[in-house]
Amino acid sequence: MRKQLELQDYLDGIKNKNLTILARAITLVESHNPDHQKLAQELLKAILPLTGKSKRVGISGTPGVGKSTFIEAFGKQLTSQNKTVAVLAVDPTSQVSGGSILGDKTRMNELAIDPMAFIRPSPSGETLGGVARRTRESMLICEAYGFDYVLVETVGVGQSETTVAQMVDLFVMLLQPGAGDDLQGIKRGILEVVDMVVVTKDDGDQEKIILRAKHDYQQALQILRHDGWIPPVLSCSAVTKKGLPEVEKTMEDYFSKEAAQIQKKREKQGLDWMWQLIHEGLKSSFQEVIDQKAIATSENKIKSNKGTPPEVAQELLKQFFSHLK
Amino acid sequence: MRKQLELQDYLDGIKNKNLTILARAITLVESHNPDHQKLAQELLKAILPLTGKSKRVGISGTPGVGKSTFIEAFGKQLTSQNKTVAVLAVDPTSQVSGGSILGDKTRMNELAIDPMAFIRPSPSGETLGGVARRTRESMLICEAYGFDYVLVETVGVGQSETTVAQMVDLFVMLLQPGAGDDLQGIKRGILEVVDMVVVTKDDGDQEKIILRAKHDYQQALQILRHDGWIPPVLSCSAVTKKGLPEVEKTMEDYFSKEAAQIQKKREKQGLDWMWQLIHEGLKSSFQEVIDQKAIATSENKIKSNKGTPPEVAQELLKQFFSHLK
Repeated sequence: MRKQLELQDYLDGIKNKNLTILARAITLVESHNPDHQKLAQELLKAILPLTGKSKRVGISGTPGVGKSTFIEAFGKQLTSQNKTVAVLAVDPTSQVSGGSILGDKTRMNELAIDPMAFIRPSPSGETLGGVARRTRESMLICEAYGFDYVLVETVGVGQSETTVAQMVDLFVMLLQPGAGDDLQGIKRGILEVVDMVVVTKDDGDQEKIILRAKHDYQQALQILRHDGWIPPVLSCSAVTKKGLPEVEKTMEDYFSKEAAQIQKKREKQGLDWMWQLIHEGLKSSFQEVIDQKAIATSENKIKSNKGTPPEVAQELLKQFFSHLK
Repeated sequence: MRKQLELQDYLDGIKNKNLTILARAITLVESHNPDHQKLAQELLKAILPLTGKSKRVGISGTPGVGKSTFIEAFGKQLTSQNKTVAVLAVDPTSQVSGGSILGDKTRMNELAIDPMAFIRPSPSGETLGGVARRTRESMLICEAYGFDYVLVETVGVGQSETTVAQMVDLFVMLLQPGAGDDLQGIKRGILEVVDMVVVTKDDGDQEKIILRAKHDYQQALQILRHDGWIPPVLSCSAVTKKGLPEVEKTMEDYFSKEAAQIQKKREKQGLDWMWQLIHEGLKSSFQEVIDQKAIATSENKIKSNKGTPPEVAQELLKQFFSHLK
């Protein structure tokens, strides 16, 4: 059995760049045990002054786009320049295919054994909100540890992309060139949170298709974004490494040119996070008090046109507040 | 002083197509007086079986696009075929310019005096959520009255377009042809809720610009929407009436081809409305209990990196629930 770690052990481990302690701190943060959660909150508070110095980058893309391959190649490029990288995978296993966590880690063979890198897949099978909450907290721990880059990966199930966009400085969407209609693959709301698009697999004889895809994305982004930073559209190959230095340079440009905006963004993200947790707390208290049967009955009233939504909402709220007293 | 109306008076008036009673019923729904609100809820419940037969169309567009002119011309086209139209303006007066309500009504000269039409501007200077809540309810009253079409107009301040899109069957965006960069004028999230785009002012010698604009919008919409109905892009002139019959035909097509989808949409909108009111009720109760000073202190803690969002949120929630007991 492993030794029970105290707050100070975690703190010392993080300050002394002990990777084992880092991993255990994230496990602590992810734990459902109330004692662990209490300790995790103390740890987060204690490390807060050490946070904020990493570049927070979200990386999104549908399965098959070459996300792991990109992160592996891009991560290696960073570590080869003595830049440290932490990779947090929000949802490494597809809910549909039921892939394994190990599968994800081994897909990044070289990066996984690189002493300048740390790869941490989040546990799967949890609610998205839950995973995301821990990812934010895991990110803070990685920052306190001192990583130059924290990459947060998402496969884009449900609202996960928006959730990740709300916790990073730079949100990158990976897309693969396709046959004309490949623009159709973008989920609603995604283009609007994207800060950079990278078309993958820019190798072989697809040049024309890639140029076309880049042009189309660039145009779509110009329609949607008109507040300063217009998300650039780049392309790269994780195999030939073509385009990867430009990706990094563009990121560095963003971080230096948009520094003031990023500061504001982080402040807003912090407040939004607080309000989101408050609203979630209110909602989950509501769900605890009002049982599923009462909710189903109310919903059926609306569906069958037997009650107006304001009336039904009022009834349920009344029930909730009278229960609390 | 006007006679105080009872529930039965409102009901009879609505059933007997008395326009004065209709107007007073909407005034009742808009009232802040708790007695009026109680009566309004009873009225809504009573008319519920009469609702659901109107075509609910949202019409959006920035000031200057020719929204009132379009509604006037389109409305007249409907009434000339013996179709009745109610027009609800979510926000007829600009918060910035402080235009007047009368101004809006007189902008639709002919429709305003048409016995087949009813124009109702909502009171301005209210919070958006408030105006929107009443618009939904006013819409139900218009439906019970028996209008074939209920047009909900919005100038698109803040989130109003999304709010309106959430209460109608068909959300139309009016756009004016511009000089190349006119696509830039679209706010985030709007293209994604649009079911139809109409380029206005298709008269004079702008043919080329309009064709280009239509093509660009069509392309942008194809990127964003990929679930059945691809929003068509039309153009028209309220002056020459060119294109207006096509606009109506396309709407009718939508209502017949997408009937099953619209039914599902309405059901979802009803449930979303209920949940939205529940969440608003929880939030406003939170805001009542926790004073602004405590919230500001908490927010400053986060801004100055002295507290983590989860920690601060937990403190505030604890305060809230202990107050309720």
